[in-house]
Amino acid sequence: MPHPLLDKHRPLLDGALNAIATRGYWSAFNEMPSPKAYGETAPADGKAAFDAHLGQQFSLDQPGQTGWHGGEQSPYGVDLNVQYPVCAIEALIAAGQQAMGGWQKIGADGRTGICLEILDRLNRQSFEIAHAVMLTTGQGWMMAFQAGAPHAQDRGLEAVAYAYREQAFVPAETIWEKPQGKNPPLVMKKHFEVVGRGVGVVVGCGTFPTWNTYPGLFAALATGNAVIVKPHSNAILPAAITVRSIRAVLAENGIDPNLVTLAVTNDRAATQQLVTHPAVKSVDFTGGNVFGQWLIDNCRQAQVYAELAGVNNIVIDSTDSYRKMLGNLAFTLSLYSGQMCTTSQAILVPAGGIETEDGHKSYDEVCADLAKAVTGFLAKPEVAHAVLGAIQSADTLKRVEEAASGRFGTVVLAPQKLENPEFPRAEVRTPVLLACDAGEEAKYMEERFGPISFIVKVADTAAAIALSERIIATHGALTAGVYSTKPEVIEAMTEATWRSKVALSINLTGGVFVNQSAAYSDYHGTGGNPSANASYADSAFVANRFRVVQRRYHV
Amino acid sequence: MPHPLLDKHRPLLDGALNAIATRGYWSAFNEMPSPKAYGETAPADGKAAFDAHLGQQFSLDQPGQTGWHGGEQSPYGVDLNVQYPVCAIEALIAAGQQAMGGWQKIGADGRTGICLEILDRLNRQSFEIAHAVMLTTGQGWMMAFQAGAPHAQDRGLEAVAYAYREQAFVPAETIWEKPQGKNPPLVMKKHFEVVGRGVGVVVGCGTFPTWNTYPGLFAALATGNAVIVKPHSNAILPAAITVRSIRAVLAENGIDPNLVTLAVTNDRAATQQLVTHPAVKSVDFTGGNVFGQWLIDNCRQAQVYAELAGVNNIVIDSTDSYRKMLGNLAFTLSLYSGQMCTTSQAILVPAGGIETEDGHKSYDEVCADLAKAVTGFLAKPEVAHAVLGAIQSADTLKRVEEAASGRFGTVVLAPQKLENPEFPRAEVRTPVLLACDAGEEAKYMEERFGPISFIVKVADTAAAIALSERIIATHGALTAGVYSTKPEVIEAMTEATWRSKVALSINLTGGVFVNQSAAYSDYHGTGGNPSANASYADSAFVANRFRVVQRRYHV
Repeated sequence: MPHPLLDKHRPLLDGALNAIATRGYWSAFNEMPSPKAYGETAPADGKAAFDAHLGQQFSLDQPGQTGWHGGEQSPYGVDLNVQYPVCAIEALIAAGQQAMGGWQKIGADGRTGICLEILDRLNRQSFEIAHAVMLTTGQGWMMAFQAGAPHAQDRGLEAVAYAYREQAFVPAETIWEKPQGKNPPLVMKKHFEVVGRGVGVVVGCGTFPTWNTYPGLFAALATGNAVIVKPHSNAILPAAITVRSIRAVLAENGIDPNLVTLAVTNDRAATQQLVTHPAVKSVDFTGGNVFGQWLIDNCRQAQVYAELAGVNNIVIDSTDSYRKMLGNLAFTLSLYSGQMCTTSQAILVPAGGIETEDGHKSYDEVCADLAKAVTGFLAKPEVAHAVLGAIQSADTLKRVEEAASGRFGTVVLAPQKLENPEFPRAEVRTPVLLACDAGEEAKYMEERFGPISFIVKVADTAAAIALSERIIATHGALTAGVYSTKPEVIEAMTEATWRSKVALSINLTGGVFVNQSAAYSDYHGTGGNPSANASYADSAFVANRFRVVQRRYHV
Repeated sequence: MPHPLLDKHRPLLDGALNAIATRGYWSAFNEMPSPKAYGETAPADGKAAFDAHLGQQFSLDQPGQTGWHGGEQSPYGVDLNVQYPVCAIEALIAAGQQAMGGWQKIGADGRTGICLEILDRLNRQSFEIAHAVMLTTGQGWMMAFQAGAPHAQDRGLEAVAYAYREQAFVPAETIWEKPQGKNPPLVMKKHFEVVGRGVGVVVGCGTFPTWNTYPGLFAALATGNAVIVKPHSNAILPAAITVRSIRAVLAENGIDPNLVTLAVTNDRAATQQLVTHPAVKSVDFTGGNVFGQWLIDNCRQAQVYAELAGVNNIVIDSTDSYRKMLGNLAFTLSLYSGQMCTTSQAILVPAGGIETEDGHKSYDEVCADLAKAVTGFLAKPEVAHAVLGAIQSADTLKRVEEAASGRFGTVVLAPQKLENPEFPRAEVRTPVLLACDAGEEAKYMEERFGPISFIVKVADTAAAIALSERIIATHGALTAGVYSTKPEVIEAMTEATWRSKVALSINLTGGVFVNQSAAYSDYHGTGGNPSANASYADSAFVANRFRVVQRRYHV
């Protein structure tokens, strides 16, 4: 008998299973923050729910609580002052392990049904979560809603669908009957139990506290593991709301809510104790190379799924849609002030310039025209603020200043500080564009997170493709792009990406951007270059999170 | 259009796909070494093919050959004197990388078809391979044939089936069409390319040079990787025959044969250079903890799939088939002189003895009766030699002597040296049984590979179950067993194995033995305890061996 929640949400699961098999467009959750989609009172209710957290203690009723901790600084300059429970690491781990037995026993169907119920619940909190994402990360409202709520929920559902598919391959039991010629056959009854590997820790990032957290969270949870969410110290609220809702749904369905807990700490040693604990069997991480590599080197007891830094790049060879190309790039470079792990950092342009439908454009013209396109795109303040959001961290602000100083290359477009009338204390910067030669590798060949991009002068297209491949193979990239009207160039770039293992966007000129990846259809990362050792979401992302324990006996 | 070899072997693939989904009994390859199954002349032809290798140079036409190396010592004392090509590691790796492009381009269908053709070819060489396995490992003839040929081929096919299933989920292309309200939809064409991760190295073991090699070999190969087979220095011939056949099938089908090569070396540094090479992205290993842990610690550039040592154990609580239980255990302990990674090493018996259909049996009686059962089972020399085979290594011979000295426990059954009339120089030993107390952990709680088993006196059944769980969680095990007439004991043992993550055999008294695992049905290892970090064969064994590289563009 299938679990009642699996029955209830079967269309959701079937839709996701079909979508990951066909990889066409599909979405379970409406991306428009409209009353029509979410109910007349949803926007106001969500805002009120968000406001109610401000200045309060965010109770979670977790074991081993020793105090409270907060301190999130909103990039919009809004006072948050939320305090979160600090709990002893050992208590959270022990409670998670304790809760795993019941979670195992309800089986893959039960776990899937409850995960779908959780996602449905989270979807109904989309406005509340979107405000939390916006105010902690500095994203613009539309992105905070879409990426923070429905798209993150889609990524979570995607992981649940992969986990379900892999677990569904394992029959609960079988009769094994081996013929023995004229003698009676050997007959064995066998049972196969899916068991989680242990406690999973999901380490969140400061820029996408739900979108980058839900895949690992739901992959680990759906496959039978306890999960401890360790949010970024400046983006706790979206994770805390998520964890509270998960705990509520678990408890409503007879599962020990301590299966999923929030680990907030102001203590680096406690975090290290958590991720290296022998009971922790998986760590999902999104963030910088220093801590990411530390995790890979030190969490030897766990599978580490890490999304790290990269140097995303685009090769421009030629185009028959010059203006649209520039417009597409301008949007990519501006969106959330380039604070996406998928934003292009290096744009590789032949020294001899490029051919366009509008005639030949020299390298310098391409630089100037791209600068103009960005400036033009951000000319209207309301567009600029909606697209740029705010700068998430002081480190990024500092990098923008350094870039503006010319230290990393010739400034083609200087950053501007904008005043946001709605959020007077918000730190808003327009993108910096720098020019440099391909030989100046120290300038552009490491991630400079934020609204900082390089237009790199390369000998010719072939050299640009070779450089792109080398950058990706050695420094990693989540995204690559190419613009060309020549099939042989696209072919060469395609083959280069097979070797360097990066997703390629070709001649994007319309309403799709290289830095966007769509759940169910686009693999986010390939797991095959230094920017990430795993992809959201594929079979490999879930298959090693559980083990099958069999038993057999004569019948 | 499907690849012609996939068409040709479609029933084989479909059979395997169905078998891994249902986990009932199925086999693609006949396990009886009979002329009826393999053709009238097959036994003689196979023997002749094997004999033709002896004293010869085994040519493979691989790149970078620098010399020849041999030196295999047959446990049966037969002179082999085969010489194998020694090739420069860099040359093998470069050639493998070079060959991967063509292997990628024929796609999952083509790779699967060619792998099936290879397995079919290897099956026709079963007698030749069986002689090679027998003479290099010391296995008895029947085991050498079954485990060395058809069962190994089944394990290879199983890996191909898993690899095919996972790759088949990835559509070659899709149209992604996202509605835009009243505006025209966004439409993207997307292509998804399955690419191997790099060169795979498969490190063979000295006891099962095909059975333990084929899963990793075919998992890596079918998912698009080049493979370098590094055989155990004393069991090269079965691997060399395998590699030569693979290279022949590849070449016949237009694939560069250097995709699969044999790495023979007498130089530890060369092996280390091979497995830590940046181009090597997976290492499959079966063998001891020292080198296995070295691989895990040092091959950080690769996924390491390692099957290491363990302390397999059985809890005896009670039985209603005392004689059959003893007979089943006697066979397990004797088969291939206990030189299986699945042989039970520790038999946990309550100090107060056990209840049987034949009345109460004290701990001492159980020890004596098991000793008698082994002695009785091996009483006829022809049975003894067929079952025991020969001792594979001098290290194992030494361990048997040490065990016989009483150093590891009270000798309940002393080993006997048997003379094999057919192979006068064969080293044959009957099993050693030792008795010790549960507290004497240093004696039984590490792997003592070979025909050495302990009957461990434990306070009671509950303590035995707890001890079993602790042994497995801390030292690992590929197999566990329990004998009990009480449902609550079986339940408690079952739950313990869910925590320690080991396959459990319950009340085996018939023609199935705890040390045997059947392809398609039994998971060999769980990947969840220290004896192995992966299982043959499941989705996790294949899903992370390839990556998906996508490209997309407007249409």
